[in-house]
Amino acid sequence: MTDLRKRREGEEKTPDSAESDHIDSEDDKIPGYKKDSIDLSSTIPSGTNKAPGLLDSFLTGLPDKWRNWIVRGVFSIIMITFFLVVIYYGPLMLILTTLAVQVKCFEEIINIGYAVYRIHGLPWFRSLSWYFLLTTNYFFYWESLVEYLGVLINRTVSRKCSLIIKTTNYFFYWESLVEYLGVLINRTDFLRVLVTYHRFISFCLYCGGFVWFVLSLVKKYYMKQFSLFAWTHVALLIVVTQSYLIIKNIFDGMIWFIVPVSMIICNDIMAYVFGFFFGKTPLIKLSPKKTWEGFIGGGISTVIFGFIMSSVMCRYPYFVCPISYNETGGMTIDCEPGALFTPEEYVFPSFLAEPLSLLGISPTVMIYPFALHSLSLSIFSSVIGPFGGFFASGFKRAFKIKDFGDIIPGHGGIMDRFDCQFLMATFVNVYISSFIRNDNPQKLLSQILHLKSDQQVELYQLLKDSLDHRNLLNVDINY
Amino acid sequence: MTDLRKRREGEEKTPDSAESDHIDSEDDKIPGYKKDSIDLSSTIPSGTNKAPGLLDSFLTGLPDKWRNWIVRGVFSIIMITFFLVVIYYGPLMLILTTLAVQVKCFEEIINIGYAVYRIHGLPWFRSLSWYFLLTTNYFFYWESLVEYLGVLINRTVSRKCSLIIKTTNYFFYWESLVEYLGVLINRTDFLRVLVTYHRFISFCLYCGGFVWFVLSLVKKYYMKQFSLFAWTHVALLIVVTQSYLIIKNIFDGMIWFIVPVSMIICNDIMAYVFGFFFGKTPLIKLSPKKTWEGFIGGGISTVIFGFIMSSVMCRYPYFVCPISYNETGGMTIDCEPGALFTPEEYVFPSFLAEPLSLLGISPTVMIYPFALHSLSLSIFSSVIGPFGGFFASGFKRAFKIKDFGDIIPGHGGIMDRFDCQFLMATFVNVYISSFIRNDNPQKLLSQILHLKSDQQVELYQLLKDSLDHRNLLNVDINY
Repeated sequence: MTDLRKRREGEEKTPDSAESDHIDSEDDKIPGYKKDSIDLSSTIPSGTNKAPGLLDSFLTGLPDKWRNWIVRGVFSIIMITFFLVVIYYGPLMLILTTLAVQVKCFEEIINIGYAVYRIHGLPWFRSLSWYFLLTTNYFFYWESLVEYLGVLINRTVSRKCSLIIKTTNYFFYWESLVEYLGVLINRTDFLRVLVTYHRFISFCLYCGGFVWFVLSLVKKYYMKQFSLFAWTHVALLIVVTQSYLIIKNIFDGMIWFIVPVSMIICNDIMAYVFGFFFGKTPLIKLSPKKTWEGFIGGGISTVIFGFIMSSVMCRYPYFVCPISYNETGGMTIDCEPGALFTPEEYVFPSFLAEPLSLLGISPTVMIYPFALHSLSLSIFSSVIGPFGGFFASGFKRAFKIKDFGDIIPGHGGIMDRFDCQFLMATFVNVYISSFIRNDNPQKLLSQILHLKSDQQVELYQLLKDSLDHRNLLNVDINY
Repeated sequence: MTDLRKRREGEEKTPDSAESDHIDSEDDKIPGYKKDSIDLSSTIPSGTNKAPGLLDSFLTGLPDKWRNWIVRGVFSIIMITFFLVVIYYGPLMLILTTLAVQVKCFEEIINIGYAVYRIHGLPWFRSLSWYFLLTTNYFFYWESLVEYLGVLINRTVSRKCSLIIKTTNYFFYWESLVEYLGVLINRTDFLRVLVTYHRFISFCLYCGGFVWFVLSLVKKYYMKQFSLFAWTHVALLIVVTQSYLIIKNIFDGMIWFIVPVSMIICNDIMAYVFGFFFGKTPLIKLSPKKTWEGFIGGGISTVIFGFIMSSVMCRYPYFVCPISYNETGGMTIDCEPGALFTPEEYVFPSFLAEPLSLLGISPTVMIYPFALHSLSLSIFSSVIGPFGGFFASGFKRAFKIKDFGDIIPGHGGIMDRFDCQFLMATFVNVYISSFIRNDNPQKLLSQILHLKSDQQVELYQLLKDSLDHRNLLNVDINY
C-alpha cells in the first residue's frame, strides 16, 4: 500500500519540492503541533527522489514526473529479478538474504533513533545496539539450529562433527573466521557446550549488555539514553524476532515464504492500480492518498493471484518440501509431497452442483488443499497487511521523514519495502503451527534422547502401552 | 540495593523537603540539562514519605528521621509476613500473587509513560495498553497451561473435562464469570479450540490491538502515540514475559522461587547494613550513596545466607517437589526428591583433607547438590542483581520521580521492590533449563500423542531401536 502514496507524490511534485516537510504542511497551522513532531528530513537520507548517475544521465531530458516513475519502475524490476535469482539459488541463499535484510532494517531504525535524539556524543549507543543485535541473533538462530543439529549430534557424535561444524560455520557466515578459530572450534566438546548451554550463554551476553548500558549512563543524558534503550529493544522485537520467524517458515518449505511475500507485493501493486483508475473514497486519514477502491480491488486481486500462484507452485517439490540436512551436512529439499500438496476432489454444494451438471460441467473440482489455505493468507495480507504500511507511514510522519533510508533508488530504505512483510511472516508462522501440524518424529526423538536412560525406558513403556491400547502395534508387527 | 539510597534520604531530609527535585538539585547548574529530563514529581505519587493515618498518629511526636525509619520497618515486616503467608497457602496462591504483582507493576510503568507525555486527551491509550496486557497474558499463560492440560486432555477427554474447566477457571480467576459463561464453556470442544488454536487466537487478538492503534492515530499526537506504543511494548517485555518465567519457576518447585527472592531481599538489606557501618568508597556515579563496602559485604552475606537457606529448605518435599495436577484436577506437591535434593558426600581436596584429618575432623562433608547450585544464584543476585536496581534508579532520575508509586508506605511502588526480582527470575529460568535438565517423560508423551498414528508408530520403532542398540531394554525386561 505504501506504493500508492509515494508514486502519487512523484507525480505531483518536483524532486526538490517533494521533501517531506511538504507532506505535513497543513499541520504547521495547528498551534502546538511543532512540539509533537521532529523534523528529520535533513538528517535521514530519502531514496524516493534519488537516481544513480548512469540512469540519471539517460533521463535528464524527461519531465521529473516521468523520470521518477522510470527510476522506480527500473528498480522494482531489479528487485523482483534479484528475488527470483535468490529463489533459484535455494534456501541457504534465501536465509542469508533474510539475515542481510534484517541487519539493514535494524540499522535504518537505529539511525532514525539516533537522529531523533540528536546527540552525537552519546556514549556507546551504536556499539550497544549492535551488541544487542548480535546477542539476540545468537539466541534465536542457535535455538533453531539446535533442533536440527540435535538429531545429528545424537546419532554420530564424533564422526560427523567436522561436517556439522562446516554447516554451522557456513550458516553463520563464519567462513573467514573459521581458519583462525579452526583449532579452537574443531572439537566436539566446544560445539556441544555452545549447543547445550546456548540459552545460558545468550542470557549472560545479554546481561553483559545490560550492565554495559547501566555503566554508560551519563547524568546529562539519562532520559535520552533510556529512550534509546527502549528504541533498540523495540527494533529488536520488530526486526530480529520476526526475521527469525521468516527463516523458520523457509525451513517448512520455500512455498511458505514465496507465496506470502508475493501476496504483499501483489497487493501493493494492485491497490495502486485500482486506486489510480477508480480511487474516489478516502480510506484512512493517516494516508490520504489511499482509497477504499484501491483497498478492495487490491484485496480481490490478491486473493485470485494467491490462489493461482499456490496452485502452480504446489506442483514442484522444490517449493513444497521442508528443508532438511542430508548425510554430508548440506541442505536438501527432497520429499514425497504431503496431503497438503496433493490435489483433492472437492464437490460443489448441491444447489450449485445441480445447475452445473445440467450444463454438462462436472460438479467436482480438483484443488490443492494448500491453495485453499492460501485464501486465509491472502485475506490476511490484504486486510491486515496494509495496516503494517499505515503503521510505518504514521511512524515516518511522526518524525517527518520521507523514507527510512536511501538504499533503493525510487523506493527508499529496505524498511519501506518490508514494512508489511514482517507482520505477514508472523501470521504465516502462527498459521502453520496452528493449522498445519507438521511435528516431526525425528525432532521429538532427539528430545527423548536428551532424557536420562531410565526416563527413556519409562517413556518407551508409556508409548508402548498407549499404542497397544489402541491396537496400533499389531497392525505394524512386521514394521 | 535500593534500600540504601532511600533510607539515607530519610535520615537527612524532612518529609516535605525530601521531594525528588532535591535529589538532582546539582543538575540544575548544568546548562541544557533541564531539556533532557522531565519533572514528574508532582504527577507520580511517591510512597517513601507516606504513612497511613493510624500509624501516623502514633508517630507524630517523633522526629521525622525516626518516623520514616519506623514506617519503613513496619511495612518491611508486613511485606515479609505476607510473603510467608502466601508460601504457607501454597503454589496456587503464589501464582495468583505473582499475577497481581505483574498487573500492578504494569500499571505503574504505564502511569509514568502517561505522565511523561502529559497528554490526557490521547485517544484510547490506556485501554489499548490494558488490552495488550490481556493479550500477552493469554498467550503466555495458556502456553504453559497447555503443557499441563495436554496430558490430561489426551488421557480422558470427556470424563475429567468439567474438573479441568474448574481448574482453568480458578487459575484465571474467572470464577465470577463462570456462572454466566457456564453454558458456553462447559463443552470439551470449546476448551479444545482454546488449547489447540491458542497461538492463532492470541495473534489475532494482538492484530486487533495493532489495527486499533493505527486507527486511533491522530495527526496532532503522532510522535507521542508512537512513543507510548513503544513504552507499552517495553513494559510488556519487562513485566509480562518475566512474570511468566517466575510462574514457570514455581512449577519446577517452590524452592526455585523462594530462594532467589530471599537472596535479593537479603542482598538489599545486608548491602545497606554494610554500607551504613563501613561504607566509604563510592561504587557508581548513578547512585552516589552506594559503596563498594556495601556491595562486597552484601554479596558475601548473600552467598552465605543462600547456602544455609538452601540446605534447610532441601529437607522439605513441600518446597522441593515440582507442581503437578492430580487426578481430581487440583495442584499437588508430592514426589520422591531427586538427586539434586539428596545429600551427597563431597571430599575436601587433599591439601585440606590431610590437616583436617590430623585435627580429627572428617575430610568429607554431606552437602545438598542444590546448595552448591545456590552459589551460582547468590553470586548472580549480588553481582548482576544490583544493576537491576541501578537501572530502575537511573530510570527514576531520568523522569525525576522518587518512586514508581505509593502503594507501600515507606517503600514506594511495587516496582521499587521488584526491580531486581525480574532479572533474577529470568536468570533462574535460564539456569534451570541449562543446568538442571528436568525434561518430563509425561510432557514429551503428550507431544507424541499429538502426532498422527503412523508417525507415533514410527517414533516408537526409532526409540525401540535406539534403546535396543544400547542394551537398555534387556535390563528392564520385567518393567
